[in-house]
Amino acid sequence: MSELVAGTAEQLAFLEELTANGLLIPSGVPGVYGRGTAFESLRLALDSLVTRSAIDDVVRVERMAFPPVIPRRQLEAIGYLGSFPHLAGSIFSFTGDEDQAVELAEHAAAHEDWSSFQSQTDLVLVPAACYPSYPAIAARGDLPDGGVSLDLGGSYVFRNEPSSDPARMQMFHQRELVRFGSPDVVADWRQRWCDRALELLRGLGLDAQSDVASDPFFGRTGRMLARSQRSQALKFEVGVPIGGVGPTAVASFNCHREHFSGLYGMSRSDGGEVHTACVGFGLERITLAMLFEHGCDQQAWSTELRAQLEPSA
Amino acid sequence: MSELVAGTAEQLAFLEELTANGLLIPSGVPGVYGRGTAFESLRLALDSLVTRSAIDDVVRVERMAFPPVIPRRQLEAIGYLGSFPHLAGSIFSFTGDEDQAVELAEHAAAHEDWSSFQSQTDLVLVPAACYPSYPAIAARGDLPDGGVSLDLGGSYVFRNEPSSDPARMQMFHQRELVRFGSPDVVADWRQRWCDRALELLRGLGLDAQSDVASDPFFGRTGRMLARSQRSQALKFEVGVPIGGVGPTAVASFNCHREHFSGLYGMSRSDGGEVHTACVGFGLERITLAMLFEHGCDQQAWSTELRAQLEPSA
Repeated sequence: MSELVAGTAEQLAFLEELTANGLLIPSGVPGVYGRGTAFESLRLALDSLVTRSAIDDVVRVERMAFPPVIPRRQLEAIGYLGSFPHLAGSIFSFTGDEDQAVELAEHAAAHEDWSSFQSQTDLVLVPAACYPSYPAIAARGDLPDGGVSLDLGGSYVFRNEPSSDPARMQMFHQRELVRFGSPDVVADWRQRWCDRALELLRGLGLDAQSDVASDPFFGRTGRMLARSQRSQALKFEVGVPIGGVGPTAVASFNCHREHFSGLYGMSRSDGGEVHTACVGFGLERITLAMLFEHGCDQQAWSTELRAQLEPSA
Repeated sequence: MSELVAGTAEQLAFLEELTANGLLIPSGVPGVYGRGTAFESLRLALDSLVTRSAIDDVVRVERMAFPPVIPRRQLEAIGYLGSFPHLAGSIFSFTGDEDQAVELAEHAAAHEDWSSFQSQTDLVLVPAACYPSYPAIAARGDLPDGGVSLDLGGSYVFRNEPSSDPARMQMFHQRELVRFGSPDVVADWRQRWCDRALELLRGLGLDAQSDVASDPFFGRTGRMLARSQRSQALKFEVGVPIGGVGPTAVASFNCHREHFSGLYGMSRSDGGEVHTACVGFGLERITLAMLFEHGCDQQAWSTELRAQLEPSA
């Protein structure tokens, strides 16, 4: 079992307030929560707010959705297990006979170890909502003029990092958008989304700041990868206060350059280079930031703030 | 790896039509698909149709949502691994050091077996969307008068059963409702939902029929459990044609009697017995049934049919 990442005193107090109010429902495992009515309504209102902002100045935004599992082979090909082996979740299942099933059930009923009755399947949990979209677009052949702009909605993703910080969930919704096109179009799209996200979050009364960032790569080699990612400004994050020592990232803006287009052999009809970028909003984190900033009782929020979250706003 | 359940010739032809039209997007693993715009819009319209039907004649319907993972300990306690060991998916992760991470990455990059670098976590995939709701309601103490009526929205659930039948997905949305209360209230709620579901599906032009059913229990003991479940009429299903030999189940109506209330120690203030029941709509299956019955081109559907799916209907 992975070690628990402890939250700050303020994060622990916030988690206690959230569960006392029925906003989050503890499951017994750190970082896995049910969501009460008030939390879920706010999360869906924020989801809609992003949907209403999801316009593209070049092409029509296309909607696509993927389940929270992808082929194991795809995670292997992307290189995720080299960079983030500690965060990945792989799916195992039972393939034995009736006698083994009886043994498995006995162990399980006694809460004893039954892992030896499980073998690895062809599936893993999705760690980043955009991953399944790259082979899907590549399979169509040459990109159309102007490229492709995808809205993947809000997808559940998994990160194996049990924590008592309510903002560090093991399974949460990434509200994800992906852009495929020429390097210029893609770079411009990412910059505009970064500006738009700051505006959107500040409009909700959050103290949002953007900064160059890096992914949580594993180990010594990982520290080198993180430095390289920062020096090339491949990742921006927008952070807001949710009781941590510094701001907590609630949105990220990632340029992959030719990483995915090369891996899946994407091409343009004019022969030019294909780049990709993605934008992800952490819906649970933005929901938590709103509750942290404005209080857990949404009925007591200002009329202006609540109007921001209305479908007609 | 589990054996592939082959679809009928008609199911295979339907799957080909669905992918050719971009309604479903193959992932490379049977039973795992992305969803194109037209499929996802229809699925969400059907989701809303259930939401609009989700009224309870006794108490206010409360909304709750859960992620697609639950504590392993909960699956053990429910007895799922005794009844359906073959369908469960458990989550494994890496807990090794830097040297082991290098080895894992090398195996993964070469698409070689890396299962020995994975160990079982505290989490499993949710096989039935209602499972996390029972401990959540039990933790509140005595049920209020009239009991509790929950709408869990559309939740992803996992079943380890790779198949080339497009209606047998490994990960799909259960649109789930759960009722907690006295035996009479719960039995009446289940019966009304069964009637309402038939009306709803027939109103969409589907040839829906209800029947007593049983769960796909594992092995010899499982056949006995299935017979007992049928003889007590604990499970009803509504089926519609989706290219199978008989109808395909698209909704189920399950009475658990005191199974969950006993397990989690639920009680009523008047000391009476607590029963639970759940209703689940397979959203992808209903979406597929609509496309199978009315054709893959939704623009060609009748005005009356399309009006049924409008938010104002």
